[in-house]
Amino acid sequence: MNWSVPKGTRDFYPEDMILREHVFASWEKSCRKYGFEQYDAPVFEHLELYTEKSGNEIEGQLYVFEDKANRRLALRPEMTPSLARMVAAKGPAMKKPVKWFSIPKLFRYEKMQKGRLREFFQLNMDILGVEDISADAELIAAAIDTMRDLGLTSSDVAVHISSRNLLEELFLSVGISPEKLPLLYALLDKMMKMERSEFNRLIDETLGDAEQAAMVQKILASKSLEDIEAINADLKSLEELKTLFGYFEAFGLSDFAKFDISIVRGLAYYTGTVFEVFDTARTMRAIAGGGRYNKLVQLYGGPETPAVGFAAGDVVLSDLLIEKGLVPTLKVRSDLFIVSFEKDLKPVISCAAKMRNAGISCEYPLKLINVGKQLKQASAANSRVVLFTGGEEEQNGQYKVKIMATGEEKLISMDRAVEEISLLLGQN
Amino acid sequence: MNWSVPKGTRDFYPEDMILREHVFASWEKSCRKYGFEQYDAPVFEHLELYTEKSGNEIEGQLYVFEDKANRRLALRPEMTPSLARMVAAKGPAMKKPVKWFSIPKLFRYEKMQKGRLREFFQLNMDILGVEDISADAELIAAAIDTMRDLGLTSSDVAVHISSRNLLEELFLSVGISPEKLPLLYALLDKMMKMERSEFNRLIDETLGDAEQAAMVQKILASKSLEDIEAINADLKSLEELKTLFGYFEAFGLSDFAKFDISIVRGLAYYTGTVFEVFDTARTMRAIAGGGRYNKLVQLYGGPETPAVGFAAGDVVLSDLLIEKGLVPTLKVRSDLFIVSFEKDLKPVISCAAKMRNAGISCEYPLKLINVGKQLKQASAANSRVVLFTGGEEEQNGQYKVKIMATGEEKLISMDRAVEEISLLLGQN
Repeated sequence: MNWSVPKGTRDFYPEDMILREHVFASWEKSCRKYGFEQYDAPVFEHLELYTEKSGNEIEGQLYVFEDKANRRLALRPEMTPSLARMVAAKGPAMKKPVKWFSIPKLFRYEKMQKGRLREFFQLNMDILGVEDISADAELIAAAIDTMRDLGLTSSDVAVHISSRNLLEELFLSVGISPEKLPLLYALLDKMMKMERSEFNRLIDETLGDAEQAAMVQKILASKSLEDIEAINADLKSLEELKTLFGYFEAFGLSDFAKFDISIVRGLAYYTGTVFEVFDTARTMRAIAGGGRYNKLVQLYGGPETPAVGFAAGDVVLSDLLIEKGLVPTLKVRSDLFIVSFEKDLKPVISCAAKMRNAGISCEYPLKLINVGKQLKQASAANSRVVLFTGGEEEQNGQYKVKIMATGEEKLISMDRAVEEISLLLGQN
Repeated sequence: MNWSVPKGTRDFYPEDMILREHVFASWEKSCRKYGFEQYDAPVFEHLELYTEKSGNEIEGQLYVFEDKANRRLALRPEMTPSLARMVAAKGPAMKKPVKWFSIPKLFRYEKMQKGRLREFFQLNMDILGVEDISADAELIAAAIDTMRDLGLTSSDVAVHISSRNLLEELFLSVGISPEKLPLLYALLDKMMKMERSEFNRLIDETLGDAEQAAMVQKILASKSLEDIEAINADLKSLEELKTLFGYFEAFGLSDFAKFDISIVRGLAYYTGTVFEVFDTARTMRAIAGGGRYNKLVQLYGGPETPAVGFAAGDVVLSDLLIEKGLVPTLKVRSDLFIVSFEKDLKPVISCAAKMRNAGISCEYPLKLINVGKQLKQASAANSRVVLFTGGEEEQNGQYKVKIMATGEEKLISMDRAVEEISLLLGQN
């Protein structure tokens, strides 16, 4: 019998949890700093929740199953449909703005590749109920801060930002028919993944008009909002993007934010700003991605609700943190380890109970083997202080303690042991 | 289209997260206090992981599905098989004792009843590698402390403790054949759920021996270890249970720990101590349950590994906390809310960025509506302090701030705004 994990999934041993807990704690702290509240939803949903948004072809990437009443369910591949369903269910009574985050486990039945697993985590942050570009700015600033709070700088990561509206306005203004826009977006989304010559051929083929193709190439060659302005200064979405980048200045985050016309995002449901976070070396997949999606809550029967959100996976981000040396290593399992020279466990337990009741994380050997082996257990636990019980000092009402980082040994009062240990832990 | 959650599952809106976050944070704190380390495993496993432990009939209670390579997978109904698989995989290299906890989402395809959902959380704590009863004591003490740390007292909950070994020794000593033990355990496990007369009839039928049946009834009437001693003083497991209850005294937890001969636990895999935590009023299902299971790691190909563990579900526990009024209510979404008398958002953003960079949780209106409406948003966020920007005071280098709990208004220096806000938040 092969007792391995299912393909594409991971075990998390305590040593693997160090990085995961670090990332999750940092994510949560960043979210709280921005006033986001946590939510969650079921791990599986009715299959239709996903096909309604993404079409029936999504089923091929899902873990689908039937329950015993023949309801078709799917493990959640993303969090946004559940979020939109929840907001839709509350109707107009829902207080706006909604600023929510979640750290769901998600599931995609995909080919295994570097940076892609079938079971993974995502940070999701969304702002609903605000049409203004200020919400896009706040959300992207939060996305950047989740990276900064993990120690990443603008030398490590950048947010590449564009706008579906800008592309639409530009493409329509050069005479491209609206029906061709989805095809163009799909092409653009794959631009970075194909040879430029092949891309150009497909642009020509899609448009069937040399002049339009030339204009599209000129648009795609834009490196800045100034380049766009030179093509067409009279665009509503250009003003909006300028305001957006102005806000990044106010946030002090301009170094992280880059206009990038090539960002379109594959999903059809985006309606405005779109962005992706990449490592600056561009050796990895996108670390995060998101944008504005003003129609989704309505799709699930809710009121018209402007919305902007992003998701950041744990897999690529963890790879980057490891590469940059931003991973904590040492993990203290317990602050205090009690060892004993005696064979009776009860006084050890009493001492441990006193410490734990005061909130001190504390361990002792469950089997009173020799003191050398007990100390080895204390080392394995990375305990910061060792307290010796059953020693001669107890006749004078004292415990011997050892500070593990320095090797220093001290005597402390038995009566005031909790206070003295707290003090030592605060100092060392 | 019906956009509801699948039957037996829950949405967690931010207001629902208050209790969940409170319980999870408390659980984690209790575990750290005892020096337990967190682990996790995939949400689905190969189906055989569960049938190997519990037999093929378990499949009826599982969400089972096939992946596209026809592997049969199941959503995890419990955590212990994954834990045992992980420990087995490391083999003898694994440092003992293993003291691990996890808070997994679990899935059981069961009839919906009060206190039972199809998707729920559990706290799991396990100690592996220690044969001594001291590990059982440490684990049960930890289980009790997870309750105490949530504010529950010995008037609210009790741990009912027995031992499979004790039952075995007692039953064998009165001449019952070993083959009948599993039948007896199964009967005992259902005792509380059936009429006593029906139970007695089944005991008679199972044993087919009036004398043995009378002895079983006498054994089951035991209310204490002294009662057991009066029946048979010469039992190894009786000594062990005495040691166990002696340790609870040393922990100062005797009020919580009750010997209860009726506890057997349904699962066949227990090999020693068994226990369940109940509300003292006995109006609810078990809050937690566990015991010793020394054979499970071997079952998954690992070395002989003594083990003891327990699991506590979130559903019954949450019901009890609500009943006892032990649920936090107010939730601060952000400590500081910045409102503005002006229409330009950029100075507001700059101020918010300064606060957030100092770690202060801070919000501002994403749309600069009138000040009254801005203050309503501050109230909705339960913000503790409001800072006014764009006011006349800025000409003197000052911000006006308002402490929401008291209504008090103050002027603070713009240059030292971060320090002064930190101070106010510390004081209020």
